[in-house]
Amino acid sequence: MKVKITDLQDLMIQLLKKNYSDTEAQSISEVLLYAELSGKNTQGLLKLMGGSEAAQNIKPKHPPKIIKETKLSALIDGGGANGPLVAQVATDKAISIAMEQGFAIVGSNNTFSSVGAISFYARKLAKNNLIGIVAAGSPKAILHDGGIDPLYGTNPIAFSFPTETHSITFDSASSAITWSGLVRAKALGQKLPENVAIDKNGNMTVDPDEAMSGALLPFDRSYKGSGIAMCIELLTGPLTGAQYIFEDGDWGTIFIAISPDLLVGVDEFKKHSSDFISKIKESRTMPGKKIHIPGFDKESQIDELMRLGEIEIEDKIIKALKGML
Amino acid sequence: MKVKITDLQDLMIQLLKKNYSDTEAQSISEVLLYAELSGKNTQGLLKLMGGSEAAQNIKPKHPPKIIKETKLSALIDGGGANGPLVAQVATDKAISIAMEQGFAIVGSNNTFSSVGAISFYARKLAKNNLIGIVAAGSPKAILHDGGIDPLYGTNPIAFSFPTETHSITFDSASSAITWSGLVRAKALGQKLPENVAIDKNGNMTVDPDEAMSGALLPFDRSYKGSGIAMCIELLTGPLTGAQYIFEDGDWGTIFIAISPDLLVGVDEFKKHSSDFISKIKESRTMPGKKIHIPGFDKESQIDELMRLGEIEIEDKIIKALKGML
Repeated sequence: MKVKITDLQDLMIQLLKKNYSDTEAQSISEVLLYAELSGKNTQGLLKLMGGSEAAQNIKPKHPPKIIKETKLSALIDGGGANGPLVAQVATDKAISIAMEQGFAIVGSNNTFSSVGAISFYARKLAKNNLIGIVAAGSPKAILHDGGIDPLYGTNPIAFSFPTETHSITFDSASSAITWSGLVRAKALGQKLPENVAIDKNGNMTVDPDEAMSGALLPFDRSYKGSGIAMCIELLTGPLTGAQYIFEDGDWGTIFIAISPDLLVGVDEFKKHSSDFISKIKESRTMPGKKIHIPGFDKESQIDELMRLGEIEIEDKIIKALKGML
Repeated sequence: MKVKITDLQDLMIQLLKKNYSDTEAQSISEVLLYAELSGKNTQGLLKLMGGSEAAQNIKPKHPPKIIKETKLSALIDGGGANGPLVAQVATDKAISIAMEQGFAIVGSNNTFSSVGAISFYARKLAKNNLIGIVAAGSPKAILHDGGIDPLYGTNPIAFSFPTETHSITFDSASSAITWSGLVRAKALGQKLPENVAIDKNGNMTVDPDEAMSGALLPFDRSYKGSGIAMCIELLTGPLTGAQYIFEDGDWGTIFIAISPDLLVGVDEFKKHSSDFISKIKESRTMPGKKIHIPGFDKESQIDELMRLGEIEIEDKIIKALKGML
């Protein structure tokens, strides 16, 4: 059904107020709404479903707090809060530091659950004329090339760059299939695609349960993808004080903000990043294919939805959420 | 033949002195020697061959110079010098800034030729207890997913992390085959592997010439790899003032150094990055496979070669280099 975007956000906020303050609920809802508006549905309203792991049911021990701070950085103890809240606090801190210093690095640990649509945070940095790099750790899932055991999280990374118009935002999980892809296949009784996972003995499998107790392949099925997953694990675990190569509990995330003023300057950078997009758009395409600029093309879609003020959401999801009130 | 490492480096320095000062020649030779010692042969002595594009034959307009500097950054005009020299100057600058501030970003432009073994610079940062991220732009080669035209360089990126012993250093080109892989196949009259390149009309090709006038696929043959190549192009072109989506001439490179002291602290980071390696090493492997930790395992090999003081180099390469003196 078509739902008013403002009503949808109100509904999310009502639910989130169970364990979070008004401001916190607002902050979390922004991330989930962005996921819905940009078509990343598994990172949107679904985060409010799923019982004890639903965002509103995660009861933090304390609000996210800064446990170490320097001129250029902050380390945040998430207090066991849900990922999007901790990540919003971390992103805002990174913006305030980097607007002043030209650079910021913020690490968060002690967070329960994924931060959700990681591109949201990188894009928020870019909207403040910063180059944003955000990477998130998660429980062990991906094998190291040549190995059988799950070691690294599905470890997504996002890069965002300001231009004279929209931001360019690229994000990708390090795994050949996302964890929510596994959960979805399992829930629907579907098989996995070929060549994305192994079972616990190291044999290829298309069974979601076997994959969950086995390991996922890196996104490129090679040592390069497992190397990238490894680097993200080092940035989100050992560097933030969160766990690494872990089963569950304490997820770490890293937020890096760089002002182009440290090098060519913001205006010069934006002039060239805009020209960069024109050059890509002018290039030849494969028959029947389009060139999609990550994040950038989606911004017009989000703007259009916001202008219309309505979004299409499955009836049963709205019904389920309203039933929880 | 077995060659004394000191003799080999002297030979390189003698050749490089044609257009470079003693210090500059020494600096360039360190990068090429590292490439040879770590088995990255296409980035080593071969850089001294190839006529006008050989490292010693690239006559810079002026030595690399800093054209903009802030507390946290430097922008370097390479003066048209060869890549390894500019990258060494940039790396040393990044180290001196980051040792003081905890962070540095250095961009270089106006560089002629590839910076060579990119892992050398990231590793040098890690040897100074910094997390190093280095990415290099290069002439257009990789297509954007859905496109036919070459847009992005083969754009390698390297990450390096200190541990209590050796550094972990991961590096990867963004393309399914490196440019030197193409050049080598062409020189030897060999075909390319399947599924690494297209010709200028967008058809798959295994012909090196057709690939050179066509485009390379990203390393994972998907939108993710072309997205990574795109992000590196933005970091090395628009952010450094170098060219982007370009044919030749002005290559840009970016050097980022982050001290773990900004977050958990260097000692804590190294304790955990070392434990991280133990966990990986203890994990199960596929039958007949070994787990290789990028960069880390190679360090013992380099140390052993340095201890022995000798390295095996093909006779004809040594002969060719001596012939140029």
